[in-house]
Amino acid sequence: MQDRDAEQPPVPPVTVIGLGLMGQALAGAFLRAGHPTTVWNRTAAKAEPLVAQGAKLADSAADAVVAGPLIVVCVSDYDAVHALLDPLGGVLEGRVLVNLTSGTSAQAGAATEWVARRGGTYLDGGIMASPASVGTADAVLAYSGPRAAFDAHSPALESLGTGMYLGADHRLSALHEVAVTSLMWGMLNAFFQGAALLGAAEVDASAYTPLAVRGIAAVTEWLPGYARQVDDGTYPGDDSTLDTHVAAMEHLVHESESLGVSAELPRYVKALADRAVADGHGGDSYAAMIEQFRKPSGTRP
Amino acid sequence: MQDRDAEQPPVPPVTVIGLGLMGQALAGAFLRAGHPTTVWNRTAAKAEPLVAQGAKLADSAADAVVAGPLIVVCVSDYDAVHALLDPLGGVLEGRVLVNLTSGTSAQAGAATEWVARRGGTYLDGGIMASPASVGTADAVLAYSGPRAAFDAHSPALESLGTGMYLGADHRLSALHEVAVTSLMWGMLNAFFQGAALLGAAEVDASAYTPLAVRGIAAVTEWLPGYARQVDDGTYPGDDSTLDTHVAAMEHLVHESESLGVSAELPRYVKALADRAVADGHGGDSYAAMIEQFRKPSGTRP
Ligand SMILES: NC(=O)c1ccc[n+]([C@@H]2O[C@H](COP(=O)([O-])OP(=O)(O)OC[C@H]3O[C@@H](n4cnc5c(N)ncnc54)[C@H](OP(=O)(O)O)[C@@H]3O)[C@@H](O)[C@H]2O)c1
Ligand SMILES: NC(=O)c1ccc[n+]([C@@H]2O[C@H](COP(=O)([O-])OP(=O)(O)OC[C@H]3O[C@@H](n4cnc5c(N)ncnc54)[C@H](OP(=O)(O)O)[C@@H]3O)[C@@H](O)[C@H]2O)c1
Repeated sequence: MQDRDAEQPPVPPVTVIGLGLMGQALAGAFLRAGHPTTVWNRTAAKAEPLVAQGAKLADSAADAVVAGPLIVVCVSDYDAVHALLDPLGGVLEGRVLVNLTSGTSAQAGAATEWVARRGGTYLDGGIMASPASVGTADAVLAYSGPRAAFDAHSPALESLGTGMYLGADHRLSALHEVAVTSLMWGMLNAFFQGAALLGAAEVDASAYTPLAVRGIAAVTEWLPGYARQVDDGTYPGDDSTLDTHVAAMEHLVHESESLGVSAELPRYVKALADRAVADGHGGDSYAAMIEQFRKPSGTRP
Repeated sequence: MQDRDAEQPPVPPVTVIGLGLMGQALAGAFLRAGHPTTVWNRTAAKAEPLVAQGAKLADSAADAVVAGPLIVVCVSDYDAVHALLDPLGGVLEGRVLVNLTSGTSAQAGAATEWVARRGGTYLDGGIMASPASVGTADAVLAYSGPRAAFDAHSPALESLGTGMYLGADHRLSALHEVAVTSLMWGMLNAFFQGAALLGAAEVDASAYTPLAVRGIAAVTEWLPGYARQVDDGTYPGDDSTLDTHVAAMEHLVHESESLGVSAELPRYVKALADRAVADGHGGDSYAAMIEQFRKPSGTRP
């Protein structure tokens, strides 16, 4: 028995609170990885498919918390987190709370203190993935908070996807999460702009997708070089200049207007680049745009 | 001799007009693939590195055109194309002009007719790549125009990168090019927004890049599914709802404001999504945003 245990360490119990689209995926991934999984949700019915897969539905949030050393919470927002946990008293003592609810870095800071006052340890996490990919290595989850707590629970958290530890600074997970999601929205909005444009010329979004994917792959290749330029503060325009980009943006505005789709995002993209050119960056690479994003808003007319 | 020729067909001569950042890369790729390459540029000095690699510098644009059956033009804009080619008379007769200069679909249409009147054939092309990747399979070039002309020169054009033939409709290349470049700008702007935000928290852009790349990979996985929703006109929110996105956008706005970087793009992204929610799409997936991009601008307050 002891030998068998040594070879195959027991899979620790975990708790998931919040069974929305994402919480259900998280609990499902823990179950598939063999963790004894206790779940709780305000609307109990959402637990049914998980119970069918072997999850234990707790009678209360407090019962869910005391079921194991690791509690993963994923609800709509921090108001919901506090509505759930504030009434619970000392149940968090000696436990690690991993909060995968989206929020601000300030909210993560306040939660860190709130959990510490109750004798628990707080890790903030951000999910950079859709529910469908949770439980696969493609899903990336980023964490910040005490390193020891992350290390202790990293094997269990790895059941949810690829874990990236960002550092002890409690702000890091929330900041990286909004950065990555802003990248996602930026991509999707621009994809839909192109799909609207091509749709007006009777090209299906699905027909456009393979070329879009190739374009995305190209930009992915450029990012490390542009990031280096951003960090260095010099933007040699040896691939393409902002002047050339602005001329092409004019075509985007023009095509959007002629085809009768929204030209609002194109005009905004061009206005941003025009400002960089007005600041003297016309001969620089696109990375010079970083300076526009660093300026506090409202300092420009 | 004849047998050797049959095994290894002679590599046809090509002409490249315009030796800016992109034109130099195009000519270099032809040279590396073994094409006898004639080049011409308004500023002759830019031909020097190519001549050192074996290119022939023509004395005039007309001489460059008559050097072979395939002429690739890549200059700043269509005004430059016409400034170069209008004076040349009938030299295009029987030749194929591939214009890789960025422009609008209307400009491509006018050029199609202009070249046809001179007895030549026009293919419009768009380069979805940076000069550094030209000549590798990673570089995608999209073409539209007569299929026969594309097929005849496709082996030579393949020296520049992966060629995608979009169809006979002369508009297709220009429209796909602005769509893909709008995707590139959208990605880069959003990447820089995140880099600005994280920079204010003392995270280097280079340190952020690996996570950004993972986020991009996730969105790439979602595109085919979202494209299908766009084409179907139904947006089941079974991964994540617009309501959830809007709540997270609020965090992006808030973090940008607190860290003193520009909150303008975040506010715009949220305003767009707010409109989709106001239109009743709060429970739908992000693909419902397509409807905002399809609306002609100015129809919204
Ligand atoms: N879905 C994604 O792709 C995705 C990706 C990354 C991050 N996230 C983040 O994950 C979190 C959850 O997202 P989701 O997609 O799962 O949202 P969702 O499907 O709308 O689920 C929301 C969850 O929060 C619970 N909840 C809301 N208010 C509550 C309250 N006052 N008290 C108790 N429970 C409350 C809901 O309980 P009921 O079932 O009782 O309503 C439900 O379990 C969000 O912060 C989101 O930003 C989601
Ligand atoms: N660079 C990229 O990453 C990239 C990517 C995709 C598409 N493109 C497109 O490729 C085209 C060229 O871009 P680029 O980056 O090579 O630009 P560039 O470095 O600025 O080069 C511009 C070229 O156009 C020539 N030119 C401009 N006006 C002219 C005129 N009136 N008469 C004759 N020649 C003229 C220039 O000649 P001089 O040398 O004499 O000035 C030079 O050869 C643009 O349409 C651009 O949108 C570029």
